[in-house]
Amino acid sequence: MQIEEKCMIKEYLKTRKEIVDRFIKEYFSLRSPSTTLHDAMTYSLFAGGKRLRPILTLTSNEACGGEPEKILHYAGAIELIHTYSLIHDDLPSMDDDDLRRGKPSNHKVFGEAMAILAGDALLTEAFTMLSCCQSNGISSASSLRAIYEISHAAGPHGMVAGQAEDILAEESEPNFDTLTFIHKHKTGALITTSVRVGAILADADNSDIESLTEYGNNIGIAFQIMDDILDIEGNTAELGKKTGSDEKKKKLTYPALFGVEQSRKKAYTHIENAIEAISHFSEKAEPLRAIARYIVERNH
Amino acid sequence: MQIEEKCMIKEYLKTRKEIVDRFIKEYFSLRSPSTTLHDAMTYSLFAGGKRLRPILTLTSNEACGGEPEKILHYAGAIELIHTYSLIHDDLPSMDDDDLRRGKPSNHKVFGEAMAILAGDALLTEAFTMLSCCQSNGISSASSLRAIYEISHAAGPHGMVAGQAEDILAEESEPNFDTLTFIHKHKTGALITTSVRVGAILADADNSDIESLTEYGNNIGIAFQIMDDILDIEGNTAELGKKTGSDEKKKKLTYPALFGVEQSRKKAYTHIENAIEAISHFSEKAEPLRAIARYIVERNH
Repeated sequence: MQIEEKCMIKEYLKTRKEIVDRFIKEYFSLRSPSTTLHDAMTYSLFAGGKRLRPILTLTSNEACGGEPEKILHYAGAIELIHTYSLIHDDLPSMDDDDLRRGKPSNHKVFGEAMAILAGDALLTEAFTMLSCCQSNGISSASSLRAIYEISHAAGPHGMVAGQAEDILAEESEPNFDTLTFIHKHKTGALITTSVRVGAILADADNSDIESLTEYGNNIGIAFQIMDDILDIEGNTAELGKKTGSDEKKKKLTYPALFGVEQSRKKAYTHIENAIEAISHFSEKAEPLRAIARYIVERNH
Repeated sequence: MQIEEKCMIKEYLKTRKEIVDRFIKEYFSLRSPSTTLHDAMTYSLFAGGKRLRPILTLTSNEACGGEPEKILHYAGAIELIHTYSLIHDDLPSMDDDDLRRGKPSNHKVFGEAMAILAGDALLTEAFTMLSCCQSNGISSASSLRAIYEISHAAGPHGMVAGQAEDILAEESEPNFDTLTFIHKHKTGALITTSVRVGAILADADNSDIESLTEYGNNIGIAFQIMDDILDIEGNTAELGKKTGSDEKKKKLTYPALFGVEQSRKKAYTHIENAIEAISHFSEKAEPLRAIARYIVERNH
Protein backbone atom coordinates (compact mmCIF):
# COMPACT_ATOMS: atom_id res chain seq x y z
CA MET A 1 0.00 0.00 0.00
CA GLN A 2 1.37 3.42 -1.03
CA ILE A 3 1.95 6.02 1.70
CA GLU A 4 -0.45 8.41 -0.01
CA GLU A 5 -3.25 5.85 -0.17
CA LYS A 6 -2.61 4.79 3.42
CA CYS A 7 -2.88 8.41 4.49
CA MET A 8 -6.13 8.90 2.55
CA ILE A 9 -7.82 5.78 3.88
CA LYS A 10 -6.80 6.67 7.44
CA GLU A 11 -8.41 10.08 6.96
CA TYR A 12 -11.51 8.48 5.39
CA LEU A 13 -11.86 6.03 8.31
CA LYS A 14 -11.38 8.85 10.83
CA THR A 15 -14.15 10.96 9.28
CA ARG A 16 -16.53 8.01 9.07
CA LYS A 17 -15.74 7.00 12.63
CA GLU A 18 -16.64 10.52 13.79
CA ILE A 19 -20.00 10.31 12.02
CA VAL A 20 -20.78 6.96 13.66
CA ASP A 21 -19.58 8.17 17.08
CA ARG A 22 -21.69 11.32 16.89
CA PHE A 23 -24.78 9.36 15.89
CA ILE A 24 -24.43 6.82 18.71
CA LYS A 25 -23.67 9.55 21.25
CA GLU A 26 -26.76 11.55 20.27
CA TYR A 27 -28.95 8.46 20.27
CA PHE A 28 -27.92 7.58 23.81
CA SER A 29 -28.03 11.12 25.16
CA LEU A 30 -31.65 11.41 24.02
CA ARG A 31 -32.75 8.11 25.52
CA SER A 32 -30.74 7.05 28.48
CA PRO A 33 -31.23 7.87 32.12
CA SER A 34 -28.21 8.18 34.37
CA THR A 35 -27.95 4.70 35.86
CA THR A 36 -25.15 2.22 36.52
CA LEU A 37 -26.47 0.09 33.66
CA HIS A 38 -26.28 3.05 31.29
CA ASP A 39 -22.76 3.85 32.51
CA ALA A 40 -21.69 0.25 31.93
CA MET A 41 -23.15 0.26 28.40
CA THR A 42 -21.57 3.54 27.36
CA TYR A 43 -18.24 2.72 29.02
CA SER A 44 -17.61 -0.02 26.47
CA LEU A 45 -19.42 1.71 23.64
CA PHE A 46 -17.07 4.69 23.83
CA ALA A 47 -13.90 2.83 24.74
CA GLY A 48 -12.12 3.59 21.49
CA GLY A 49 -13.56 1.12 18.99
CA LYS A 50 -12.42 1.50 15.38
CA ARG A 51 -16.06 1.29 14.17
CA LEU A 52 -14.96 -0.94 11.28
CA ARG A 53 -18.32 -2.72 10.97
CA PRO A 54 -20.60 0.36 10.82
CA ILE A 55 -18.11 2.05 8.48
CA LEU A 56 -18.32 -0.98 6.17
CA THR A 57 -22.12 -0.64 6.18
CA LEU A 58 -21.94 3.01 5.19
CA THR A 59 -19.20 2.44 2.60
CA SER A 60 -20.97 -0.51 1.02
CA ASN A 61 -24.19 1.50 0.90
CA GLU A 62 -22.39 4.32 -0.90
CA ALA A 63 -20.74 1.89 -3.32
CA CYS A 64 -24.25 0.74 -4.29
CA GLY A 65 -25.54 4.28 -4.84
CA GLY A 66 -27.23 4.68 -1.45
CA GLU A 67 -27.25 7.69 0.84
CA PRO A 68 -25.25 6.64 3.94
CA GLU A 69 -26.61 9.40 6.17
CA LYS A 70 -30.02 7.70 5.94
CA ILE A 71 -28.85 4.37 7.32
CA LEU A 72 -26.99 5.41 10.46
CA HIS A 73 -29.46 3.47 12.66
CA TYR A 74 -28.46 0.25 10.95
CA ALA A 75 -24.73 0.96 11.10
CA GLY A 76 -24.99 2.02 14.75
CA ALA A 77 -26.98 -1.08 15.71
CA ILE A 78 -24.26 -3.32 14.28
CA GLU A 79 -21.68 -1.53 16.45
CA LEU A 80 -23.88 -2.06 19.54
CA ILE A 81 -23.97 -5.79 18.77
CA HIS A 82 -20.21 -5.90 18.24
CA THR A 83 -19.67 -4.10 21.57
CA TYR A 84 -21.96 -6.49 23.49
CA SER A 85 -20.02 -9.44 22.06
CA LEU A 86 -16.71 -8.00 23.30
CA ILE A 87 -18.09 -7.43 26.82
CA HIS A 88 -19.36 -11.02 27.06
CA ASP A 89 -16.21 -12.48 25.44
CA ASP A 90 -14.04 -10.80 28.09
CA LEU A 91 -15.98 -12.29 31.05
CA PRO A 92 -14.09 -14.50 33.52
CA SER A 93 -16.02 -17.60 32.43
CA MET A 94 -15.24 -16.87 28.75
CA ASP A 95 -11.84 -15.48 27.65
CA ASP A 96 -11.15 -13.87 31.05
CA ASP A 97 -9.51 -10.73 29.66
CA ASP A 98 -8.73 -7.86 32.03
CA LEU A 99 -7.88 -5.35 29.32
CA ARG A 100 -9.76 -4.24 26.22
CA ARG A 101 -8.56 -1.44 23.97
CA GLY A 102 -6.09 -0.32 26.63
CA LYS A 103 -8.72 0.02 29.37
CA PRO A 104 -9.93 -2.33 32.09
CA SER A 105 -12.59 -4.57 30.57
CA ASN A 106 -16.22 -3.98 31.50
CA HIS A 107 -16.48 -6.56 34.31
CA LYS A 108 -13.28 -5.25 35.93
CA VAL A 109 -14.97 -1.87 36.32
CA PHE A 110 -18.65 -2.74 36.87
CA GLY A 111 -18.51 -6.31 38.16
CA GLU A 112 -19.56 -9.49 36.43
CA ALA A 113 -23.35 -9.18 36.86
CA MET A 114 -23.49 -5.63 35.52
CA ALA A 115 -21.20 -6.54 32.60
CA ILE A 116 -23.50 -9.39 31.58
CA LEU A 117 -26.48 -7.03 31.80
CA ALA A 118 -24.69 -4.26 29.88
CA GLY A 119 -24.08 -6.78 27.09
CA ASP A 120 -27.69 -7.96 27.16
CA ALA A 121 -28.88 -4.35 27.11
CA LEU A 122 -26.67 -3.37 24.15
CA LEU A 123 -27.79 -6.41 22.16
CA THR A 124 -31.46 -5.67 22.83
CA GLU A 125 -31.12 -1.93 22.25
CA ALA A 126 -29.61 -2.68 18.84
CA PHE A 127 -33.02 -3.99 17.77
CA THR A 128 -34.76 -0.94 19.22
CA MET A 129 -32.37 1.20 17.18
CA LEU A 130 -33.14 -0.88 14.11
CA SER A 131 -36.91 -0.63 14.47
CA CYS A 132 -37.48 2.82 15.98
CA CYS A 133 -37.06 5.21 13.09
CA GLN A 134 -38.78 4.55 9.84
CA SER A 135 -39.08 8.08 8.51
CA ASN A 136 -35.88 8.09 6.50
CA GLY A 137 -37.05 6.74 3.17
CA ILE A 138 -36.11 3.12 3.87
CA SER A 139 -39.12 0.86 3.25
CA SER A 140 -40.47 -1.29 6.08
CA ALA A 141 -39.75 -4.38 3.98
CA SER A 142 -36.05 -3.44 3.55
CA SER A 143 -35.86 -2.65 7.25
CA LEU A 144 -37.21 -6.08 8.15
CA ARG A 145 -34.78 -7.74 5.77
CA ALA A 146 -31.88 -5.87 7.41
CA ILE A 147 -33.08 -6.91 10.87
CA TYR A 148 -33.24 -10.52 9.72
CA GLU A 149 -29.74 -10.35 8.21
CA ILE A 150 -28.26 -8.83 11.36
CA SER A 151 -29.96 -11.11 13.90
CA HIS A 152 -29.16 -14.20 11.84
CA ALA A 153 -25.48 -13.22 11.60
CA ALA A 154 -25.25 -12.42 15.31
CA GLY A 155 -27.17 -15.39 16.67
CA PRO A 156 -26.80 -19.16 17.09
CA HIS A 157 -26.11 -19.66 13.36
CA GLY A 158 -23.48 -16.92 13.34
CA MET A 159 -21.43 -15.06 15.92
CA VAL A 160 -22.66 -16.89 19.03
CA ALA A 161 -21.99 -20.26 17.37
CA GLY A 162 -18.42 -19.11 16.69
CA GLN A 163 -17.84 -18.05 20.29
CA ALA A 164 -19.35 -21.32 21.59
CA GLU A 165 -17.04 -23.35 19.34
CA ASP A 166 -14.09 -21.18 20.38
CA ILE A 167 -14.77 -21.92 24.07
CA LEU A 168 -15.14 -25.64 23.36
CA ALA A 169 -11.99 -25.73 21.19
CA GLU A 170 -9.64 -24.39 23.89
CA GLU A 171 -7.12 -27.01 24.88
CA SER A 172 -8.11 -29.20 21.92
CA GLU A 173 -5.73 -30.20 19.11
CA PRO A 174 -5.28 -27.57 16.35
CA ASN A 175 -7.60 -28.40 13.47
CA PHE A 176 -8.10 -26.32 10.32
CA ASP A 177 -11.82 -27.12 9.96
CA THR A 178 -12.57 -25.96 13.50
CA LEU A 179 -10.44 -22.85 13.04
CA THR A 180 -12.27 -21.99 9.81
CA PHE A 181 -15.65 -22.51 11.49
CA ILE A 182 -14.69 -20.25 14.40
CA HIS A 183 -13.33 -17.43 12.23
CA LYS A 184 -16.23 -17.59 9.78
CA HIS A 185 -18.81 -17.40 12.54
CA LYS A 186 -17.22 -15.45 15.40
CA THR A 187 -15.78 -12.58 13.35
CA GLY A 188 -16.73 -13.20 9.74
CA ALA A 189 -20.51 -13.38 10.00
CA LEU A 190 -21.02 -9.88 11.41
CA ILE A 191 -18.41 -8.32 9.09
CA THR A 192 -20.01 -9.88 6.01
CA THR A 193 -23.44 -8.79 7.19
CA SER A 194 -22.24 -5.23 7.78
CA VAL A 195 -21.33 -5.11 4.09
CA ARG A 196 -24.52 -6.89 2.92
CA VAL A 197 -26.86 -4.65 4.93
CA GLY A 198 -25.39 -1.52 3.36
CA ALA A 199 -26.10 -2.99 -0.06
CA ILE A 200 -29.59 -4.21 0.83
CA LEU A 201 -30.55 -0.76 2.12
CA ALA A 202 -29.38 0.74 -1.18
CA ASP A 203 -31.70 -1.69 -3.00
CA ALA A 204 -28.71 -3.29 -4.74
CA ASP A 205 -29.49 -6.19 -7.05
CA ASN A 206 -28.81 -9.76 -5.93
CA SER A 207 -25.67 -10.24 -8.01
CA ASP A 208 -24.07 -7.14 -6.47
CA ILE A 209 -25.08 -8.34 -3.00
CA GLU A 210 -23.41 -11.67 -3.77
CA SER A 211 -20.20 -9.96 -4.92
CA LEU A 212 -20.16 -7.92 -1.74
CA THR A 213 -20.77 -11.06 0.31
CA GLU A 214 -17.65 -12.56 -1.28
CA TYR A 215 -15.79 -9.33 -0.46
CA GLY A 216 -17.06 -9.44 3.14
CA ASN A 217 -16.19 -13.11 3.66
CA ASN A 218 -12.63 -12.51 2.48
CA ILE A 219 -11.91 -9.35 4.46
CA GLY A 220 -13.45 -11.04 7.51
CA ILE A 221 -10.95 -13.90 7.39
CA ALA A 222 -8.03 -11.54 6.65
CA PHE A 223 -9.08 -9.33 9.56
CA GLN A 224 -9.11 -12.26 11.98
CA ILE A 225 -5.74 -13.59 10.75
CA MET A 226 -4.22 -10.14 11.29
CA ASP A 227 -5.77 -10.02 14.78
CA ASP A 228 -4.08 -13.32 15.59
CA ILE A 229 -0.73 -12.09 14.19
CA LEU A 230 -1.00 -8.81 16.13
CA ASP A 231 -1.62 -10.80 19.30
CA ILE A 232 1.89 -12.22 18.79
CA GLU A 233 3.74 -9.29 17.24
CA GLY A 234 1.96 -6.17 18.44
CA ASN A 235 2.80 -4.37 21.63
CA THR A 236 0.36 -3.79 24.46
CA ALA A 237 0.31 -0.01 24.05
CA GLU A 238 -0.68 -0.05 20.37
CA LEU A 239 -3.05 -2.96 20.68
CA GLY A 240 -4.69 -2.03 23.97
CA LYS A 241 -4.63 -5.56 25.24
CA LYS A 242 -1.98 -7.95 26.43
CA THR A 243 -0.12 -9.66 23.61
CA GLY A 244 0.63 -13.34 23.65
CA SER A 245 -2.67 -14.07 25.40
CA ASP A 246 -3.87 -16.43 22.66
CA GLU A 247 -0.80 -18.60 23.07
CA LYS A 248 -1.10 -18.62 26.84
CA LYS A 249 -4.71 -19.76 26.54
CA LYS A 250 -3.78 -22.27 23.82
CA LYS A 251 -6.27 -20.59 21.51
CA LEU A 252 -6.72 -22.10 18.09
CA THR A 253 -5.27 -19.47 15.70
CA TYR A 254 -3.81 -19.21 12.19
CA PRO A 255 -0.25 -18.54 13.46
CA ALA A 256 -0.51 -21.55 15.80
CA LEU A 257 -1.39 -23.71 12.82
CA PHE A 258 0.69 -22.20 9.98
CA GLY A 259 3.26 -19.88 11.57
CA VAL A 260 3.25 -16.08 11.23
CA GLU A 261 4.64 -15.72 7.70
CA GLN A 262 2.36 -18.30 6.09
CA SER A 263 -0.59 -16.75 7.91
CA ARG A 264 0.30 -13.29 6.64
CA LYS A 265 0.49 -14.63 3.08
CA LYS A 266 -2.94 -16.16 3.48
CA ALA A 267 -4.33 -12.84 4.71
CA TYR A 268 -2.94 -11.07 1.62
CA THR A 269 -4.50 -13.69 -0.65
CA HIS A 270 -7.90 -13.12 0.97
CA ILE A 271 -7.55 -9.38 0.44
CA GLU A 272 -6.77 -9.96 -3.27
CA ASN A 273 -9.86 -12.17 -3.50
CA ALA A 274 -11.96 -9.49 -1.81
CA ILE A 275 -10.83 -6.80 -4.24
CA GLU A 276 -11.30 -9.15 -7.19
CA ALA A 277 -14.89 -9.88 -6.09
CA ILE A 278 -15.86 -6.21 -6.52
CA SER A 279 -13.65 -5.46 -9.54
CA HIS A 280 -16.71 -4.65 -11.69
CA PHE A 281 -17.93 -1.96 -9.27
CA SER A 282 -17.41 1.70 -10.19
CA GLU A 283 -14.99 4.12 -8.54
CA LYS A 284 -17.63 4.53 -5.83
CA ALA A 285 -16.29 1.25 -4.45
CA GLU A 286 -12.75 2.64 -4.15
CA PRO A 287 -13.07 3.13 -0.35
CA LEU A 288 -14.11 -0.53 0.00
CA ARG A 289 -10.95 -1.55 -1.89
CA ALA A 290 -8.78 0.75 0.23
CA ILE A 291 -10.32 -0.61 3.47
CA ALA A 292 -9.50 -4.14 2.31
CA ARG A 293 -5.87 -3.22 1.67
CA TYR A 294 -5.64 -1.34 4.96
CA ILE A 295 -6.86 -4.34 6.99
CA VAL A 296 -3.60 -6.20 6.37
CA GLU A 297 -1.43 -3.15 7.05
CA ARG A 298 -2.92 -1.97 10.34
CA ASN A 299 -0.93 -2.26 13.53
CA HIS A 300 -3.78 -2.17 16.06
CA MET B 1 -62.77 -18.27 41.30
CA GLN B 2 -65.39 -21.01 40.79
CA ILE B 3 -64.18 -24.60 40.37
CA GLU B 4 -65.80 -24.79 36.95
CA GLU B 5 -64.10 -21.63 35.72
CA LYS B 6 -60.76 -22.75 37.17
CA CYS B 7 -61.10 -26.04 35.34
CA MET B 8 -61.95 -24.29 32.05
CA ILE B 9 -59.09 -21.82 32.22
CA LYS B 10 -56.64 -24.59 33.09
CA GLU B 11 -57.80 -26.48 30.01
CA TYR B 12 -57.59 -23.30 27.90
CA LEU B 13 -54.05 -22.60 29.09
CA LYS B 14 -53.04 -26.22 28.46
CA THR B 15 -54.29 -26.15 24.87
CA ARG B 16 -52.62 -22.82 24.16
CA LYS B 17 -49.38 -23.99 25.75
CA GLU B 18 -49.41 -27.02 23.42
CA ILE B 19 -49.81 -24.75 20.39
CA VAL B 20 -46.89 -22.58 21.50
CA ASP B 21 -44.73 -25.61 22.36
CA ARG B 22 -45.41 -27.24 18.99
CA PHE B 23 -44.57 -24.05 17.13
CA ILE B 24 -41.28 -23.51 18.96
CA LYS B 25 -40.33 -27.17 18.62
CA GLU B 26 -40.93 -27.15 14.87
CA TYR B 27 -39.09 -23.87 14.43
CA PHE B 28 -36.00 -25.25 16.16
CA SER B 29 -36.10 -28.66 14.54
CA LEU B 30 -36.05 -27.00 11.12
CA ARG B 31 -33.17 -24.69 11.90
CA SER B 32 -30.82 -26.00 14.47
CA PRO B 33 -27.80 -28.21 14.08
CA SER B 34 -26.91 -30.63 16.83
CA THR B 35 -24.40 -28.67 18.88
CA THR B 36 -23.78 -28.03 22.57
CA LEU B 37 -25.06 -24.49 22.09
CA HIS B 38 -28.29 -25.79 20.59
CA ASP B 39 -28.65 -28.32 23.42
CA ALA B 40 -28.16 -25.57 26.00
CA MET B 41 -30.78 -23.35 24.30
CA THR B 42 -33.41 -26.07 24.00
CA TYR B 43 -32.71 -27.43 27.48
CA SER B 44 -34.11 -24.28 29.04
CA LEU B 45 -36.65 -23.63 26.31
CA PHE B 46 -38.35 -26.97 26.97
CA ALA B 47 -37.86 -27.11 30.72
CA GLY B 48 -41.55 -26.83 31.54
CA GLY B 49 -42.36 -23.13 31.17
CA LYS B 50 -46.02 -22.13 31.54
CA ARG B 51 -45.83 -20.04 28.33
CA LEU B 52 -47.87 -17.30 30.04
CA ARG B 53 -46.43 -14.49 27.92
CA PRO B 54 -46.97 -16.04 24.45
CA ILE B 55 -50.43 -17.19 25.54
CA LEU B 56 -51.25 -13.60 26.53
CA THR B 57 -50.16 -12.46 23.06
CA LEU B 58 -52.45 -14.98 21.37
CA THR B 59 -55.35 -14.30 23.74
CA SER B 60 -55.08 -10.53 23.42
CA ASN B 61 -54.91 -10.89 19.64
CA GLU B 62 -58.10 -12.95 19.66
CA ALA B 63 -59.83 -10.48 21.98
CA CYS B 64 -59.15 -7.79 19.35
CA GLY B 65 -60.51 -9.87 16.50
CA GLY B 66 -57.18 -11.18 15.21
CA GLU B 67 -56.29 -14.65 14.02
CA PRO B 68 -53.84 -16.03 16.63
CA GLU B 69 -52.49 -18.79 14.38
CA LYS B 70 -50.98 -16.04 12.19
CA ILE B 71 -48.90 -14.48 14.96
CA LEU B 72 -47.13 -17.51 16.44
CA HIS B 73 -43.72 -16.10 15.46
CA TYR B 74 -44.32 -13.08 17.68
CA ALA B 75 -45.65 -15.10 20.60
CA GLY B 76 -42.76 -17.58 20.29
CA ALA B 77 -40.15 -14.83 20.14
CA ILE B 78 -41.42 -13.38 23.42
CA GLU B 79 -41.00 -16.80 25.05
CA LEU B 80 -37.41 -17.01 23.74
CA ILE B 81 -36.67 -13.65 25.35
CA HIS B 82 -38.29 -14.71 28.62
CA THR B 83 -36.22 -17.93 28.61
CA TYR B 84 -32.94 -16.09 27.97
CA SER B 85 -33.70 -13.78 30.91
CA LEU B 86 -34.21 -16.74 33.25
CA ILE B 87 -30.91 -18.35 32.19
CA HIS B 88 -28.96 -15.14 32.80
CA ASP B 89 -30.84 -14.37 36.06
CA ASP B 90 -29.84 -17.77 37.47
CA LEU B 91 -26.09 -17.28 36.82
CA PRO B 92 -23.72 -17.39 39.81
CA SER B 93 -22.90 -13.68 39.47
CA MET B 94 -26.62 -12.80 39.38
CA ASP B 95 -29.18 -14.65 41.55
CA ASP B 96 -27.04 -17.80 41.78
CA ASP B 97 -29.94 -20.26 41.55
CA ASP B 98 -29.18 -23.96 41.16
CA LEU B 99 -32.75 -25.00 40.38
CA ARG B 100 -35.27 -23.71 37.87
CA ARG B 101 -38.66 -25.33 37.31
CA GLY B 102 -37.54 -28.40 39.23
CA LYS B 103 -34.44 -28.98 37.10
CA PRO B 104 -30.81 -27.96 37.49
CA SER B 105 -30.45 -24.47 36.06
CA ASN B 106 -28.70 -24.02 32.72
CA HIS B 107 -25.21 -23.21 34.03
CA LYS B 108 -25.30 -26.21 36.40
CA VAL B 109 -25.67 -28.46 33.35
CA PHE B 110 -23.70 -26.67 30.63
CA GLY B 111 -21.30 -24.48 32.60
CA GLU B 112 -21.29 -20.73 32.99
CA ALA B 113 -19.83 -19.78 29.58
CA MET B 114 -22.28 -21.92 27.62
CA ALA B 115 -25.21 -20.66 29.72
CA ILE B 116 -24.30 -17.04 28.95
CA LEU B 117 -24.03 -17.94 25.25
CA ALA B 118 -27.31 -19.89 25.27
CA GLY B 119 -29.01 -16.78 26.68
CA ASP B 120 -27.35 -14.53 24.11
CA ALA B 121 -28.37 -16.94 21.36
CA LEU B 122 -32.02 -17.14 22.46
CA LEU B 123 -32.26 -13.35 22.71
CA THR B 124 -30.79 -12.89 19.24
CA GLU B 125 -32.79 -15.74 17.69
CA ALA B 126 -35.97 -14.06 18.97
CA PHE B 127 -35.35 -11.25 16.49
CA THR B 128 -34.65 -13.72 13.70
CA MET B 129 -37.99 -15.34 14.52
CA LEU B 130 -39.67 -11.94 14.49
CA SER B 131 -38.24 -10.91 11.13
CA CYS B 132 -38.02 -14.16 9.17
CA CYS B 133 -41.56 -14.85 8.05
CA GLN B 134 -43.61 -12.16 6.49
CA SER B 135 -45.99 -14.21 4.40
CA ASN B 136 -48.77 -14.46 6.96
CA GLY B 137 -50.79 -11.35 6.21
CA ILE B 138 -49.13 -9.15 8.81
CA SER B 139 -47.88 -5.93 7.20
CA SER B 140 -44.18 -5.05 7.36
CA ALA B 141 -45.09 -1.86 9.23
CA SER B 142 -47.00 -3.79 11.94
CA SER B 143 -44.12 -6.25 12.17
CA LEU B 144 -41.63 -3.44 12.72
CA ARG B 145 -43.86 -1.88 15.36
CA ALA B 146 -44.06 -5.23 17.18
CA ILE B 147 -40.27 -5.61 17.03
CA TYR B 148 -39.87 -2.13 18.48
CA GLU B 149 -42.36 -2.83 21.29
CA ILE B 150 -40.64 -6.10 22.20
CA SER B 151 -37.05 -4.86 22.09
CA HIS B 152 -37.96 -1.72 24.02
CA ALA B 153 -39.70 -3.75 26.75
CA ALA B 154 -36.83 -6.24 26.99
CA GLY B 155 -33.92 -3.79 26.88
CA PRO B 156 -32.27 -1.13 29.05
CA HIS B 157 -35.56 0.78 29.46
CA GLY B 158 -37.44 -2.37 30.45
CA MET B 159 -36.53 -5.84 31.65
CA VAL B 160 -32.74 -5.41 31.80
CA ALA B 161 -33.16 -2.16 33.78
CA GLY B 162 -35.30 -4.10 36.28
CA GLN B 163 -32.74 -6.86 36.69
CA ALA B 164 -29.92 -4.32 37.08
CA GLU B 165 -31.86 -2.48 39.81
CA ASP B 166 -32.70 -5.82 41.47
CA ILE B 167 -29.00 -6.71 41.64
CA LEU B 168 -28.10 -3.27 43.01
CA ALA B 169 -30.97 -3.34 45.55
CA GLU B 170 -29.86 -6.56 47.26
CA GLU B 171 -28.80 -5.89 50.82
CA SER B 172 -30.26 -2.37 50.67
CA GLU B 173 -33.10 -1.12 52.89
CA PRO B 174 -36.63 -2.08 51.72
CA ASN B 175 -38.11 0.82 49.77
CA PHE B 176 -41.46 0.83 47.97
CA ASP B 177 -40.31 3.03 45.07
CA THR B 178 -37.40 0.72 44.28
CA LEU B 179 -39.64 -2.35 44.58
CA THR B 180 -42.20 -0.81 42.21
CA PHE B 181 -39.46 0.06 39.72
CA ILE B 182 -38.06 -3.49 39.81
CA HIS B 183 -41.44 -5.21 39.41
CA LYS B 184 -42.59 -2.83 36.68
CA HIS B 185 -39.43 -3.35 34.64
CA LYS B 186 -38.17 -6.84 35.44
CA THR B 187 -41.48 -8.70 35.09
CA GLY B 188 -44.10 -6.14 34.15
CA ALA B 189 -42.61 -4.71 30.96
CA LEU B 190 -42.52 -7.99 29.02
CA ILE B 191 -45.96 -9.10 30.28
CA THR B 192 -47.55 -5.80 29.28
CA THR B 193 -45.84 -5.95 25.91
CA SER B 194 -47.02 -9.51 25.33
CA VAL B 195 -50.58 -8.19 25.63
CA ARG B 196 -49.94 -5.04 23.57
CA VAL B 197 -48.26 -6.91 20.70
CA GLY B 198 -51.27 -9.21 20.33
CA ALA B 199 -53.47 -6.14 20.00
CA ILE B 200 -51.13 -4.29 17.63
CA LEU B 201 -50.99 -7.29 15.31
CA ALA B 202 -54.81 -7.36 15.24
CA ASP B 203 -54.75 -3.70 14.16
CA ALA B 204 -56.61 -2.70 17.33
CA ASP B 205 -57.30 1.01 17.76
CA ASN B 206 -55.23 3.06 20.18
CA SER B 207 -57.86 3.27 22.91
CA ASP B 208 -58.17 -0.54 23.01
CA ILE B 209 -54.38 -0.85 23.10
CA GLU B 210 -54.34 1.55 26.04
CA SER B 211 -57.00 -0.47 27.91
CA LEU B 212 -54.98 -3.63 27.33
CA THR B 213 -51.84 -1.87 28.52
CA GLU B 214 -53.67 -1.08 31.79
CA TYR B 215 -54.75 -4.74 31.96
CA GLY B 216 -51.16 -5.89 31.32
CA ASN B 217 -49.62 -3.53 33.88
CA ASN B 218 -51.99 -4.77 36.55
CA ILE B 219 -51.66 -8.50 35.92
CA GLY B 220 -47.88 -8.01 35.71
CA ILE B 221 -47.73 -6.62 39.25
CA ALA B 222 -50.16 -9.24 40.59
CA PHE B 223 -48.11 -12.00 38.94
CA GLN B 224 -44.91 -10.79 40.59
CA ILE B 225 -46.55 -10.41 44.02
CA MET B 226 -47.84 -13.99 43.77
CA ASP B 227 -44.35 -15.15 42.76
CA ASP B 228 -42.95 -13.55 45.90
CA ILE B 229 -45.68 -15.11 48.07
CA LEU B 230 -45.13 -18.54 46.50
CA ASP B 231 -41.42 -18.23 47.27
CA ILE B 232 -42.43 -18.17 50.94
CA GLU B 233 -45.46 -20.45 50.99
CA GLY B 234 -45.01 -22.85 48.10
CA ASN B 235 -43.19 -26.12 48.32
CA THR B 236 -40.16 -26.99 46.24
CA ALA B 237 -41.92 -29.80 44.37
CA GLU B 238 -44.80 -27.63 43.11
CA LEU B 239 -42.68 -24.59 42.46
CA GLY B 240 -39.66 -26.30 40.97
CA LYS B 241 -37.23 -24.11 42.84
CA LYS B 242 -36.14 -23.76 46.42
CA THR B 243 -38.56 -21.73 48.53
CA GLY B 244 -37.38 -19.08 50.93
CA SER B 245 -34.55 -18.12 48.61
CA ASP B 246 -35.68 -14.49 48.36
CA GLU B 247 -35.48 -14.07 52.12
CA LYS B 248 -32.10 -15.74 52.29
CA LYS B 249 -30.80 -13.34 49.68
CA LYS B 250 -32.54 -10.39 51.37
CA LYS B 251 -34.39 -9.72 48.11
CA LEU B 252 -36.68 -6.73 48.07
CA THR B 253 -40.20 -8.24 47.80
CA TYR B 254 -43.81 -7.33 48.55
CA PRO B 255 -44.07 -9.80 51.48
CA ALA B 256 -40.84 -8.40 52.95
CA LEU B 257 -42.37 -4.93 52.86
CA PHE B 258 -46.07 -5.57 53.64
CA GLY B 259 -46.34 -9.14 54.96
CA VAL B 260 -48.04 -12.00 53.10
CA GLU B 261 -51.69 -11.14 53.74
CA GLN B 262 -51.42 -7.46 52.80
CA SER B 263 -49.48 -8.47 49.69
CA ARG B 264 -52.15 -10.97 48.67
CA LYS B 265 -54.83 -8.26 49.08
CA LYS B 266 -52.82 -5.94 46.85
CA ALA B 267 -52.54 -8.67 44.20
CA TYR B 268 -56.34 -9.13 44.23
CA THR B 269 -56.86 -5.38 43.86
CA HIS B 270 -54.58 -5.34 40.81
CA ILE B 271 -56.55 -8.20 39.26
CA GLU B 272 -59.81 -6.26 39.81
CA ASN B 273 -58.20 -3.24 38.13
CA ALA B 274 -57.05 -5.41 35.22
CA ILE B 275 -60.55 -6.80 34.64
CA GLU B 276 -62.10 -3.35 35.01
CA ALA B 277 -59.73 -1.96 32.36
CA ILE B 278 -61.16 -4.31 29.71
CA SER B 279 -64.78 -4.30 30.94
CA HIS B 280 -65.97 -2.79 27.65
CA PHE B 281 -64.47 -5.63 25.58
CA SER B 282 -66.81 -8.29 24.20
CA GLU B 283 -67.03 -11.92 25.34
CA LYS B 284 -63.98 -12.55 23.14
CA ALA B 285 -61.98 -11.08 26.04
CA GLU B 286 -63.35 -13.66 28.50
CA PRO B 287 -60.14 -15.74 28.42
CA LEU B 288 -58.14 -12.59 29.28
CA ARG B 289 -60.39 -12.06 32.31
CA ALA B 290 -60.10 -15.70 33.35
CA ILE B 291 -56.29 -15.60 33.03
CA ALA B 292 -56.24 -12.54 35.28
CA ARG B 293 -58.30 -14.31 37.96
CA TYR B 294 -56.20 -17.47 37.64
CA ILE B 295 -52.93 -15.58 38.23
CA VAL B 296 -53.80 -15.00 41.90
CA GLU B 297 -55.03 -18.57 42.41
CA ARG B 298 -52.12 -20.52 40.92
CA ASN B 299 -49.87 -22.55 43.18
CA HIS B 300 -46.79 -22.72 40.94
